[in-house]
Amino acid sequence: MTARSPSVREINRNMPLFKQMTIAGVGLIGGSLALVAKRERLVNRVIGFGRTQANLDIAKARGMIDVATRDPEQAARGSDLVLLAVPILTMRATLENMLAHLAPAAIVTDVGSVKGWVVRELEPLIRPPATLVAAHPVAGKETTGAAAADPELFRDRRVIITPSATTSEAAIIKIEKLWTATGARVEQMDPDLHDALLARSSHLPQIVSSALAAALLDERVGGLSAEEFGAGGLRDVTRLAGSSWEMWRDIFATNRDALRSAMQRFAATFAEFERTIDAGDIEALETLFERGRRMRAKIR
Amino acid sequence: MTARSPSVREINRNMPLFKQMTIAGVGLIGGSLALVAKRERLVNRVIGFGRTQANLDIAKARGMIDVATRDPEQAARGSDLVLLAVPILTMRATLENMLAHLAPAAIVTDVGSVKGWVVRELEPLIRPPATLVAAHPVAGKETTGAAAADPELFRDRRVIITPSATTSEAAIIKIEKLWTATGARVEQMDPDLHDALLARSSHLPQIVSSALAAALLDERVGGLSAEEFGAGGLRDVTRLAGSSWEMWRDIFATNRDALRSAMQRFAATFAEFERTIDAGDIEALETLFERGRRMRAKIR
Repeated sequence: MTARSPSVREINRNMPLFKQMTIAGVGLIGGSLALVAKRERLVNRVIGFGRTQANLDIAKARGMIDVATRDPEQAARGSDLVLLAVPILTMRATLENMLAHLAPAAIVTDVGSVKGWVVRELEPLIRPPATLVAAHPVAGKETTGAAAADPELFRDRRVIITPSATTSEAAIIKIEKLWTATGARVEQMDPDLHDALLARSSHLPQIVSSALAAALLDERVGGLSAEEFGAGGLRDVTRLAGSSWEMWRDIFATNRDALRSAMQRFAATFAEFERTIDAGDIEALETLFERGRRMRAKIR
Repeated sequence: MTARSPSVREINRNMPLFKQMTIAGVGLIGGSLALVAKRERLVNRVIGFGRTQANLDIAKARGMIDVATRDPEQAARGSDLVLLAVPILTMRATLENMLAHLAPAAIVTDVGSVKGWVVRELEPLIRPPATLVAAHPVAGKETTGAAAADPELFRDRRVIITPSATTSEAAIIKIEKLWTATGARVEQMDPDLHDALLARSSHLPQIVSSALAAALLDERVGGLSAEEFGAGGLRDVTRLAGSSWEMWRDIFATNRDALRSAMQRFAATFAEFERTIDAGDIEALETLFERGRRMRAKIR
């Protein structure tokens, strides 16, 4: 191998995108992104902001943040990027406590699972040259907290950026670069379109799983618990039912319109299963069942 | 270690339970049981009966059967055990073709997922000293056929024997020994109680998974496919939707009464999710969601 000078591209790659990033909520998502940002030297300094000192201590020990604080002013002071990785309904208050202390041209971004609400709530607060770049990394696991953070969490997953009327192009490019470094596929989409899609592909499966598990809780027949007679199938279908209420409460509360039509669609299909099984209409039942098989074959 | 004479128990253990076992349907379940029966020397000879020569050839090559045939008379001749591992609705015709050729005191057993129907269909055909021992191994995987057979398939799983009015005690004991050798936990239960329990723990999850997948097939929003925006959660909840129609057709057709009440129970719970989300009744929604979490925590 021969030595060679770095290309302009490589110099750019090694230039930090941000001087100082504040992460509000150093959990699974925020912590995983911080690990990549530090590893790739995309930020000079990371400030971790959170409610519980124990979690911040873990984040610091794992090297994902340089400074840990529970004071929002101190967390925000001089940052040119703030990442809101807190539950959706607490984003507004979190940002309000920080906004006056950020750098004037700061970028505000988030990782919330609902985007229309986030844009409508946060955008009116932010004055240019500061700007909002709402985003949603479609990734997760069942564990939470800084201890569960993993720099590989986002590899090959989608990150959906939902620009709004006042989002600056330059800011989108920087947030795209940040997420691209995680190995994710980054795309842009209208916030309400995002919410309609995710209501079907993510929020509806959660409700279906939770409803099945809730229906089976304490369901006894002849003195025996139905849940004890499930095999791997029951375990798969109810896996999501174990998710955290805190996260889902905010999704249910902020994506109501899109959820309404997604739930109606499922309820109608389930009612068709009920009708055809009850009527012994095996031909119509086969058509329904095969529709499910075809959909499933696409996501294997 | 010192040499010692085998105890009576060990001699018993090594005595074959059956002279000749006919397996009608050498697929995942029948083939897996055959592998254990051969390994543990519980039968002297195993005859494999099936529709497709290619599958029988695999069964023979893997040593799970001694003889392969597509002729039911030849398959049954002189057997003192016949295992019906074919779809439920074809069990009666399969047995009718074999019955006259079995040993007089033969045991007829099955592995169907519905038991009331099987007992009501098959018992009237069987004259003492022949006897029916209906049974359901609660196990499975997504693959099928003799190639997928696995002697460890039943380890730590349930096998539910559902005796009926004319089932002999001696025959139950032999079938219990056969299944115990697989590492399964064997229990006895009334056939209709079995069907009510499994309607909830197994058949309902299948319908819920299929209905979700069917509802999402070709579901497009703004020109994008919802199914492409799912993560691991969607994959888990729809895994069962990929199951074989042939098997489920017969379960849906033969367990209608138990399924009706199980489906109503789920539909009512799902409707509660719809109502509380739509009304923004976060407190009632939390109660529902936490019911699901509690159920899920029990089956982890």
